Amino acid sequence: MIIHLKPGIAKEKAENLAKELQAVLLADETKKILVTPSALKSVDSRFDDVVAEKFVFNDDLLLGSRQYRKKTREIRIGNILIGGDSGHTLVITGPCSVESETQIETMARLCVELAVKMLRGGAFKPRTSPYTFQGLGTAGSKLLSRMREKYGLKIISEVRDATHIEEIIEYSDVIQIGAKSMYDHGILRRCGSAGKPVMIKRGFGTLLQEFVQAAEFILSGGNENVILCERGIRTFENKTRFTLDLCGVSYLKEKTNLPVILDPSHAIGYAYGVPDLTRACIAMGVDGVIIESHPDPKTALSDASQQLNPDEFRKLYKSLAPVAKAVGRIIV
Amino acid sequence: MIIHLKPGIAKEKAENLAKELQAVLLADETKKILVTPSALKSVDSRFDDVVAEKFVFNDDLLLGSRQYRKKTREIRIGNILIGGDSGHTLVITGPCSVESETQIETMARLCVELAVKMLRGGAFKPRTSPYTFQGLGTAGSKLLSRMREKYGLKIISEVRDATHIEEIIEYSDVIQIGAKSMYDHGILRRCGSAGKPVMIKRGFGTLLQEFVQAAEFILSGGNENVILCERGIRTFENKTRFTLDLCGVSYLKEKTNLPVILDPSHAIGYAYGVPDLTRACIAMGVDGVIIESHPDPKTALSDASQQLNPDEFRKLYKSLAPVAKAVGRIIV
Amino acid sequence: MIIHLKPGIAKEKAENLAKELQAVLLADETKKILVTPSALKSVDSRFDDVVAEKFVFNDDLLLGSRQYRKKTREIRIGNILIGGDSGHTLVITGPCSVESETQIETMARLCVELAVKMLRGGAFKPRTSPYTFQGLGTAGSKLLSRMREKYGLKIISEVRDATHIEEIIEYSDVIQIGAKSMYDHGILRRCGSAGKPVMIKRGFGTLLQEFVQAAEFILSGGNENVILCERGIRTFENKTRFTLDLCGVSYLKEKTNLPVILDPSHAIGYAYGVPDLTRACIAMGVDGVIIESHPDPKTALSDASQQLNPDEFRKLYKSLAPVAKAVGRIIV
Amino acid sequence: MIIHLKPGIAKEKAENLAKELQAVLLADETKKILVTPSALKSVDSRFDDVVAEKFVFNDDLLLGSRQYRKKTREIRIGNILIGGDSGHTLVITGPCSVESETQIETMARLCVELAVKMLRGGAFKPRTSPYTFQGLGTAGSKLLSRMREKYGLKIISEVRDATHIEEIIEYSDVIQIGAKSMYDHGILRRCGSAGKPVMIKRGFGTLLQEFVQAAEFILSGGNENVILCERGIRTFENKTRFTLDLCGVSYLKEKTNLPVILDPSHAIGYAYGVPDLTRACIAMGVDGVIIESHPDPKTALSDASQQLNPDEFRKLYKSLAPVAKAVGRIIV
Repeated sequence: MIIHLKPGIAKEKAENLAKELQAVLLADETKKILVTPSALKSVDSRFDDVVAEKFVFNDDLLLGSRQYRKKTREIRIGNILIGGDSGHTLVITGPCSVESETQIETMARLCVELAVKMLRGGAFKPRTSPYTFQGLGTAGSKLLSRMREKYGLKIISEVRDATHIEEIIEYSDVIQIGAKSMYDHGILRRCGSAGKPVMIKRGFGTLLQEFVQAAEFILSGGNENVILCERGIRTFENKTRFTLDLCGVSYLKEKTNLPVILDPSHAIGYAYGVPDLTRACIAMGVDGVIIESHPDPKTALSDASQQLNPDEFRKLYKSLAPVAKAVGRIIV
Repeated sequence: MIIHLKPGIAKEKAENLAKELQAVLLADETKKILVTPSALKSVDSRFDDVVAEKFVFNDDLLLGSRQYRKKTREIRIGNILIGGDSGHTLVITGPCSVESETQIETMARLCVELAVKMLRGGAFKPRTSPYTFQGLGTAGSKLLSRMREKYGLKIISEVRDATHIEEIIEYSDVIQIGAKSMYDHGILRRCGSAGKPVMIKRGFGTLLQEFVQAAEFILSGGNENVILCERGIRTFENKTRFTLDLCGVSYLKEKTNLPVILDPSHAIGYAYGVPDLTRACIAMGVDGVIIESHPDPKTALSDASQQLNPDEFRKLYKSLAPVAKAVGRIIV
Repeated sequence: MIIHLKPGIAKEKAENLAKELQAVLLADETKKILVTPSALKSVDSRFDDVVAEKFVFNDDLLLGSRQYRKKTREIRIGNILIGGDSGHTLVITGPCSVESETQIETMARLCVELAVKMLRGGAFKPRTSPYTFQGLGTAGSKLLSRMREKYGLKIISEVRDATHIEEIIEYSDVIQIGAKSMYDHGILRRCGSAGKPVMIKRGFGTLLQEFVQAAEFILSGGNENVILCERGIRTFENKTRFTLDLCGVSYLKEKTNLPVILDPSHAIGYAYGVPDLTRACIAMGVDGVIIESHPDPKTALSDASQQLNPDEFRKLYKSLAPVAKAVGRIIV
Repeated sequence: MIIHLKPGIAKEKAENLAKELQAVLLADETKKILVTPSALKSVDSRFDDVVAEKFVFNDDLLLGSRQYRKKTREIRIGNILIGGDSGHTLVITGPCSVESETQIETMARLCVELAVKMLRGGAFKPRTSPYTFQGLGTAGSKLLSRMREKYGLKIISEVRDATHIEEIIEYSDVIQIGAKSMYDHGILRRCGSAGKPVMIKRGFGTLLQEFVQAAEFILSGGNENVILCERGIRTFENKTRFTLDLCGVSYLKEKTNLPVILDPSHAIGYAYGVPDLTRACIAMGVDGVIIESHPDPKTALSDASQQLNPDEFRKLYKSLAPVAKAVGRIIV
């Protein structure tokens, strides 16, 4: 249950109510909100004089639900706006891993050329094998930061585990929680108090229910700016790397108030399918896409098969505006 | 291996070669083709004087592969053309099951109103429970046939099992092999010699490899007109009925020469998501979509949750042409 | 709902009741039973004088449920008894495909040597590729039949599709419905009136719910002798061929009254794991196991990697009795 | 590739070789070992005079492979021994979460009564919802520690994220890495240098390949005592909570040198199936099982449906020794 307390309730009283109901208290100058387990369906009548509004739920999708907030949340990343009434579909591109200054700068310049506003790149890579390239670490973060300063791009980069989260918060405009880290309470809790938007990727073995619950960890920590990212789930099919779950995206659009960004590159794992899939994602009417690109994919230190080269990305990018327009949206 | 024999090779000689190579022989007035297991990578030099052209393969995708035929097959269904150079995306609609003359005629009239050219409807339903509605059977087939005569619509209907396949061949313009029947050798072999196009649906537990192998059964039986239909696979996610595999569709478009039709209705299982998903399918650049619709879905005897009502379908249909145009295609 | 009618109700009256309730009527000399969709939870009071006993259900597991019949069904295959109070665990072995008289006879003799009572072998193989060995067909069925006559073995063989089901009914002691055919209404309905036990394999993409519903098709057709066979489901894991679902077996043992036989050979797909897995199956306390064996697996025309050679099977077989004894069961 | 350097190679030289080959160096008084990416298949001949032994691999299962060490690793947890030549199968039990001193002490006493030597209990729970019980945290760890002192039991408890790993290392005898944390580099790297055995649970969406790679992170960090735990994978089947992957266990037993412990409780998620499944696990010949039990499961704050009550556990425990004996093993 979500309970909006009446204005003027003292903070101490709100805290006592929270304790009594085993609830999370969200409070700022203008509002005080209690969030209880969804199993709670009613409160005692003696609460009547403190409760302004109540919302009862079927499952643990509460703050992030459309039942609670009808409209998709509006999220600002500097001068970029997604969600709300914007009708914007954000395109993000860049390499899987930051590998060198030359490499990341090539992609930053491609962004500038095409007016793409946000650059991606991994500094801390959650590789499955300990014997392969693990990312440049802090040096990679700093290269991304330099691209922001030099080219005015916004930066999204992934936190791998709780040990280096402060660095990602410092160097990124959007904190990306990767598919393998999305259950990490150390990360989720810290993001709840971070002052930056968070994009959380669905784990490849993660139920939609668990995915939105992970978002609830951040929302209930007080961070209102959470973006969901579907990047493919693991199924029995092995001709493609993962299976992009657009049925799940329909569910997220219907049931949640959170902007949705799609990652077709990781889903299929092969560059040949990325253009068609990206256009399909745009036609779904989502809030963004994130596409891997690399100056020379065949030499990439990770995800070599799925990154587009600059010409492939240019061609794809130019095909997106008409599709967006056909579904009433604008590429930003 | 596929071997094109030189013109003028006598039929008997071709049959002997087929026997020797454990190959399937495809023969008509103009050509004689041997298809062997893909494990065969070369033939003895004494075959040199009979072989016009040879194709070697990595797996059992042979006649249906783009490696064998670069261009997507052109398929004619009366005056409807898909594949080839047509750039056509066919829209098919109609109810899950034929339930009554009034019901099917309402949907036939909706097709006429919108200039939709093909009507779907199930007469023999492969229900999972023996205690629920099993379809009208032959009476349903005849109602579909009447709609064709009265309204000039093309008909697609599903064969449930080998015992009534002759009836489906007689009454349909396109024979639909359902997801639960796609391994049925009785059906596949009979379709190989049927003189009508066949649309084969991917089983919900079926690998892409097996899916195209099922098409090979029909192709190697001599029927060149096979359409693939992706309708959602079964994954761990249970908030939606199935998971539409658009990554798999990318694979099919890249590797096969067969037209592809998508069924978003069965994939998600809920009407709310069908419009977004259908537009995504159109943006993939496929050859068709098949959308379930019903005069009054909540009273439907099967698949009640996923069928669109006439107004929902009208609204969706009108939104498709701009998306198709944005990717260089035309709705037919 | 299942309704036992009072003794002495005339057949015509029972038929009328069945029609009124859209129910299946099961009738013989001693009993008349109506089976309705599980959605029906009560009947009008005017039925009071014909109803002897009623059973209400949550889902479409009715005749096969433990709620209806507490004890596992007893099934006789000639002199072999499984289920009921027998405590028997039946071991079945033989090759994937019948390939030649020498081959099948070698395995028949191995059965005799070890006192294994039932021989398996496929005559009609549901291969996924049209370009590989499809089984010996009728010749294979006849070879199996000869082994029965010569060595007194019981025979189990698979029906591939509805076109040759009469032959399988004639030549087998137990009719096997394969994983790819288990939704085939042509087969399920015919098995309902066949006078022989039926072992139905779970499809690799089949829900437990659908699996027991397939059994209900046969049970409601009047054949009381249905055995369930779990043989591995398709999951994201690809180091093994399938994933044997023993959690699902626990569910089947808890909820159904049908004997359960397990097929570890198809599940893992590699001979190295078959012994451990077979012992695990025996320790589950199931009614049987079916193990693929072949005189010389590396030359097998199908499933070469998973068949045990005679020595491997001998060694495995001898290890089973102690495990069975440890869980209070007897190998037959 | 794994390279054993000749005795007497100086540490500095070994470090230079490691740098040159991008290898991990494992060094102690008696040996120096280089581990390179598995892609490396040979080294230059100028290495001949430093290389004592070389091992080439197909994939990134190296230190943990049977190809490298034929025999299963022997692991000591105080006076408990598993793996090696011991033939021991360790039984671990206890509640999902430590809830109170009374609760955990009840289960500790049950262990003492039955001579079970290791107690499990979660203090930091990786719950999917932020609005439910999250574990007692440090207070829970201390209660477990008290049980060790009072009853001489060994303790296994789960690390949830990298922020509290030092506490788990301090209070546990075996560090458990949970299914949701097994990709966490912060945890994996720290465990590599921890002086205690680590039991790593397979993620429910994790490939066997990735599972053993996670173990390689710890092994290559210098900790030789890694145990694998299969606890069920997520599949399309939803009548049970997960699907215990015993085919995968066969693979792990065949290909790795790491002891394997199975967790049937989390796999099925329902107490009714735990006894049969546990006996199946024992019959697989694995190194241990971990079974959830609780003084009064229906009141449990987490995993209420799957925990056994003391009587159910007693009955199960007593049935295990005969099964173990039947497969040549001893319960400890």
